[in-house]
Amino acid sequence: MSALGHSVPRLEDDRLLRGRGRFHDDVVRPGQLWLRVVRSPVAHAELRGVDTVRAAALPGVAAVVTAADLPPGLRIPVRQPHPGLDFTDWLQPPLAAGRVRYAGEPVAAVLAEDPYLAEDAAELVGLDLAELAPVLDARTAPADAHEVGVVDFGYGDVDAAFAGAAHVVSADLRTGRHSGTPLEPRGLVAEPDADTGRLTVWGAAKIPHINRRVLASLLALPEHRIHMRETDAGGSFGIRGEFYPEDFLVPFLALRTGRPVKWSEDRTEHMTAANHAREQEHRIELALDADGRLLALRDEAWLDNGAYIRTHGAVVAALTASMVSGPYRLPACRSRVHIVTTHKTPIGTYRAPGRFQHNFVREHALDLAANRLGIDPVELRRRNLLTAAELPHQRPMQVFGSPMVLDGKDHLEHFDKGRAAVGYERWRTEAAEARAAGRLVGTGCAVILEKAGLGYDSAVVDIGVTGAVRVVMGGANVGQGIQTVMAQIAAEELAVPAGSVHVVLSDTDLLPDGGGTFGSRSTVVGGTAVREAALKVLERARAVAGELLGAEPAELVPHEGGLAVRGAPERRLDWGRIAAASFAPRWTATGEEAGLIGRATYAAQGMTYPYGAHFAQVEVDPETGAVRLLRYAVTYEVGRAVHPESVRGQLLGGAVQGIGGALSEEFRYDERGTPLSLTLDDYLWPRAADLPEIQVEVYEDAPAPGNPLGLRGAGEGGTAGSGAVLAGAVRDALGLAGDVGALPLHPSRVRSLMSRGTYRTTSRETSDEQSDEQSDEMSEEKSDAMSGEMSHEPPALEAS
Amino acid sequence: MSALGHSVPRLEDDRLLRGRGRFHDDVVRPGQLWLRVVRSPVAHAELRGVDTVRAAALPGVAAVVTAADLPPGLRIPVRQPHPGLDFTDWLQPPLAAGRVRYAGEPVAAVLAEDPYLAEDAAELVGLDLAELAPVLDARTAPADAHEVGVVDFGYGDVDAAFAGAAHVVSADLRTGRHSGTPLEPRGLVAEPDADTGRLTVWGAAKIPHINRRVLASLLALPEHRIHMRETDAGGSFGIRGEFYPEDFLVPFLALRTGRPVKWSEDRTEHMTAANHAREQEHRIELALDADGRLLALRDEAWLDNGAYIRTHGAVVAALTASMVSGPYRLPACRSRVHIVTTHKTPIGTYRAPGRFQHNFVREHALDLAANRLGIDPVELRRRNLLTAAELPHQRPMQVFGSPMVLDGKDHLEHFDKGRAAVGYERWRTEAAEARAAGRLVGTGCAVILEKAGLGYDSAVVDIGVTGAVRVVMGGANVGQGIQTVMAQIAAEELAVPAGSVHVVLSDTDLLPDGGGTFGSRSTVVGGTAVREAALKVLERARAVAGELLGAEPAELVPHEGGLAVRGAPERRLDWGRIAAASFAPRWTATGEEAGLIGRATYAAQGMTYPYGAHFAQVEVDPETGAVRLLRYAVTYEVGRAVHPESVRGQLLGGAVQGIGGALSEEFRYDERGTPLSLTLDDYLWPRAADLPEIQVEVYEDAPAPGNPLGLRGAGEGGTAGSGAVLAGAVRDALGLAGDVGALPLHPSRVRSLMSRGTYRTTSRETSDEQSDEQSDEMSEEKSDAMSGEMSHEPPALEAS
Repeated sequence: MSALGHSVPRLEDDRLLRGRGRFHDDVVRPGQLWLRVVRSPVAHAELRGVDTVRAAALPGVAAVVTAADLPPGLRIPVRQPHPGLDFTDWLQPPLAAGRVRYAGEPVAAVLAEDPYLAEDAAELVGLDLAELAPVLDARTAPADAHEVGVVDFGYGDVDAAFAGAAHVVSADLRTGRHSGTPLEPRGLVAEPDADTGRLTVWGAAKIPHINRRVLASLLALPEHRIHMRETDAGGSFGIRGEFYPEDFLVPFLALRTGRPVKWSEDRTEHMTAANHAREQEHRIELALDADGRLLALRDEAWLDNGAYIRTHGAVVAALTASMVSGPYRLPACRSRVHIVTTHKTPIGTYRAPGRFQHNFVREHALDLAANRLGIDPVELRRRNLLTAAELPHQRPMQVFGSPMVLDGKDHLEHFDKGRAAVGYERWRTEAAEARAAGRLVGTGCAVILEKAGLGYDSAVVDIGVTGAVRVVMGGANVGQGIQTVMAQIAAEELAVPAGSVHVVLSDTDLLPDGGGTFGSRSTVVGGTAVREAALKVLERARAVAGELLGAEPAELVPHEGGLAVRGAPERRLDWGRIAAASFAPRWTATGEEAGLIGRATYAAQGMTYPYGAHFAQVEVDPETGAVRLLRYAVTYEVGRAVHPESVRGQLLGGAVQGIGGALSEEFRYDERGTPLSLTLDDYLWPRAADLPEIQVEVYEDAPAPGNPLGLRGAGEGGTAGSGAVLAGAVRDALGLAGDVGALPLHPSRVRSLMSRGTYRTTSRETSDEQSDEQSDEMSEEKSDAMSGEMSHEPPALEAS
Repeated sequence: MSALGHSVPRLEDDRLLRGRGRFHDDVVRPGQLWLRVVRSPVAHAELRGVDTVRAAALPGVAAVVTAADLPPGLRIPVRQPHPGLDFTDWLQPPLAAGRVRYAGEPVAAVLAEDPYLAEDAAELVGLDLAELAPVLDARTAPADAHEVGVVDFGYGDVDAAFAGAAHVVSADLRTGRHSGTPLEPRGLVAEPDADTGRLTVWGAAKIPHINRRVLASLLALPEHRIHMRETDAGGSFGIRGEFYPEDFLVPFLALRTGRPVKWSEDRTEHMTAANHAREQEHRIELALDADGRLLALRDEAWLDNGAYIRTHGAVVAALTASMVSGPYRLPACRSRVHIVTTHKTPIGTYRAPGRFQHNFVREHALDLAANRLGIDPVELRRRNLLTAAELPHQRPMQVFGSPMVLDGKDHLEHFDKGRAAVGYERWRTEAAEARAAGRLVGTGCAVILEKAGLGYDSAVVDIGVTGAVRVVMGGANVGQGIQTVMAQIAAEELAVPAGSVHVVLSDTDLLPDGGGTFGSRSTVVGGTAVREAALKVLERARAVAGELLGAEPAELVPHEGGLAVRGAPERRLDWGRIAAASFAPRWTATGEEAGLIGRATYAAQGMTYPYGAHFAQVEVDPETGAVRLLRYAVTYEVGRAVHPESVRGQLLGGAVQGIGGALSEEFRYDERGTPLSLTLDDYLWPRAADLPEIQVEVYEDAPAPGNPLGLRGAGEGGTAGSGAVLAGAVRDALGLAGDVGALPLHPSRVRSLMSRGTYRTTSRETSDEQSDEQSDEMSEEKSDAMSGEMSHEPPALEAS
């Protein structure tokens, strides 16, 4: 039986289900000190002084350090440059000096013998702060002092297309401020070894090799003296594993004190310290011809970056702008994203960064257009989706240095197949019946284009004399089941049970460089590297075994834990026997790396584009404005599912995170910039009881042409369309002629939409069966957009 | 300045001279248990039972285990097979069962909370032993029960040569039982990690990767779950780092208890537990023509192997037999070595294994022949040494699977150059003058052929973003300064100070396979691997820097910590800058391993043969028989000296170990097989006060043709000729016509030679200026040899 495509028992589960996972907090080093970070209580202030005297005097306190104790001028660098943008002035120092720029910003670090003492001492650190007015809105922030730059993607003659369009639809739309909020907050343990001059760091995730380089540069310590080691991690979602101030402070203080230093973030701390995400405001415009065919898309967006440019640089902006066109036939497109600093927690990537936002604004505009043009929203999408004849489809632009070549099979076919599998027409009928019965029930659909498989990763596969197979690769275990998937890929090539493969991740000693786990890439890029490494092992093993068996290497095939002669399985050798033989002088004399070991670095030649659709049916409580999810489905083309249950799990979990962002989750601030969402109770995760059973349809119709296993990646598709589909469904439930304005659609916002009276329009030109009983009430704030539609004149965009 | 050929400050010295070395005993793991091995007090006995009850009941004792607690049938394997020999029945179990075969054999293992408790508890373990008669002499041991096999090397028609020889000289000669006795006894710490399922082992040396495979097989634990880690080591000399019973017991008990286990050998334990070496008895015969030209050599030897075949298998026997011909023009040669077990500590390799012995017997026989033929001993050697016209010289035989091709430049020239540099003729004149004054002063010279550079080793060189260079290679740090030498080799290629290079050895995580440190091979084989790895880094760096500098890669040369355009040193980039740039997508997209990293495995195509000569002048105390060393010199051709002071140190230390073996050191047993040499006071190391200043002449006249740096290796040449030269010098001092019979020449043995009255012969045919005042008294035991000379009939050799 092939190891691929079957949901074998997960390698991770044995330890996790027995409570034997090893998370950063399980790492206990003899003599360890505990770090507590002293953080700014205010959003914006002059920092006139830090008084550490009382804290340092507390018995059991080993050190209290401020910016003055750090090497001068340290800033955490951006790991990916963006052409034309200089982030230098916006980078975050490990500890603030002179000014604090967001509530939660690290100002001092306290080390003590236990965590309670450390927390007590931190409260004794005195901050002399002169509060300043905060900037809290990116759209209205003074550009001269707050605009870091503009990220600009596009192709085609957008202005001409708009000028000649039969219809123009526009909308101003906002997304909320969210974060991954993993179940396990961050944490780190660093231990110096005076004997070897090395530093071991537990708790790094996502990109351990890149972070090792950053840490090496900041500490001026050769990276080979730093050993990043694997731990389990209770979720990443893009935010865990970026290089934060604490990722410098913990190792720095360990070296300074010569003792192990541990830091374990608490939830409240996490809510202001770890990257936020998503908050954007868009002005989206679509130009369509009389038949509803898209002619152009224009988008201008303001990204609330928070106080500093962190490691992601302009990545979120670039992803927002470059992929707004989706899987549509779109002759011209232009998207500009203003990166604007505010006095809030800095932002980073969070599951489907940029896509949650641009899918929302594009799909919502399509819903508006459908109503305005009187075309069924499904039909409007069908008319514009790229089909087999047009694919692969090259957008005349580059993304992250590569040409943007959409490599799907048929986006229309996927949408139709998905709708049929979900029974979306039945959902619509049900909703219409419910509305006829006086309930506020609506449906929505959203089509998404995702991306995956960017960059490179590395892997080593070896087989030892006991016959055991080990895989070491550059990804990170963040709870997603990557060990199982990598084991399956190696097992497939080596004919061993996936459960017998030992997989090591995030260990910089065992693998000197690797890419990391982000952007739905680990199975695509890392998995392909594992496969190539396994094939190299196989090649070597065939040569060794061929001599022992008196067979041509090409005749040997992996078979039941070893190699056998094709067609003569009794002529076989176990892997362990072959491994032992590979150290004979005959083989070591070749000058190749001795033993059965294969190394591979796989670099994707470009991204691959998974794609899918989201479908939702919701009911709005007319009194409270609460949105109840009645039905939800995700269809997704993954090329090939190595472990189908994990793919489903990724999509399911992703959908829940998307639903949270669409309906409830939000980091809120008061007018002074004080964070109001410091617990999960305030932040409002969706709960299981709030959710219907979510239908997930995984398709393997379109193996990715760019990698040998045909993998497309699946980590983010569940999230990418949630905002879009729920905005559409709520709008449909309420019968809004205009747009929903902003996400999340929490009850007060929904109530305000209801109170505006913008119920189901009657102005539609054609037979939308859901529209006939609705009135057309446009809010005043939408008149610009509507006038844009009427005049076919797009409003002028601001210069950036 | 080139980094090669200069005695830069040693990387090791900073930590060692400050007392900051990290030896196995410096490794302290939380919660560690201490192992004490219970050993047999007798040489040979039936082991009827082991009573562990009292020991196990002692508070603080964690476990007491016997053979019954180990997986059945475990034997420590031989790591190198010998064609035609099956060692299976002779291998040692980790703990004895049923019978004990040498005093010191492990019988039980006690684990306790501290080392004192462990030792106390070990004394409570009761052994029920029924003593049996021991076999203590290899020459007379019953072959059916004790001969493991015969190792046989040779070429040419030896019988015909002897039949037609003008002169035949023979002698029966013995070498003593010795060992490396490093200053730091052995030790090991093993720590299991329940979280990762891995086992870390500190204290492995010499061949960590090979030992990891052995340990994996014995524990049935994949070797990737075992991490061998570097420690400093206070000397190896061939004996440290072989896989001993304790190398199984410590990791096994760590896994069994789930706790770290530490074992630190005490000196007395070391004297019976660690490998012994050298004890052999030879019957050597030379056939010469009338002019003193060698026609053939025949050697039959009995190797006292001790009780078990340990990891070396037949290596010592093979080295003894295969290289006895030395650097001489020798048309026919045959050497057979009987491997015979006795009830003593098992033997292994110890510095210049086999060569100390065969150089002694061959050179001593040449001295005898010189006297018998009336040819000056120097002249006899000169007449027979291979010269430039004959080199390279292929012996028509194979050694360790490779043709034996002597790759020297001119052995006669070396001997003459060495004699002149040493002033050997003056030494001889002085000795004659002293003898004329009634003193027992004599001189000796010995010519040696060494071997080095066998097998393969691996290395990784990387440069990180701080510009720091790291070298990881498969050798082991055993106090010889290997870190410095490897740093020099990398520094030479990369234009950085050798002192800035970080060198890591014996770490199986950082390098998955390596060869190890033995047989004077690490600089030759491992050093060449380091060079090749550095050149791979250079190639990659040139490509990266070439693009940044707008220069052709071939134009770029290493220059002051980076690369510069040839002839335009201002156009340059630091290594760190190049390393950082190497992670740009342009380079990671190549699919090569990312970063500035080079890996190489260098496999020597055959051995290289360093060569040299030893010279000595001694005085015998006529009353005590004590031999006083007046002058000693070693000349040695190393091809190329990377760190000349280290080469000198190797030769100097090696000479002292050889001198010890020639004059004083010996493991002695009583007639029951009870060891008598359990302390260094009994074993009799030479002391500094006993030694003159030893002259060491290192020559670089003949770069080895087989490796790019021309390296020949230097670890053993100081030892290889010591027995030969001192036997000759003492014989000369005493004016013996016959041979010295045995080494070491401790006072009682010398007195017995003196009391035999075998003073300086007068039967020499020619003008040996030292011989004219000596009498010719042959001992009776030598009459066979002399009759052999007279009749030209060699005595029949025993069948094996």
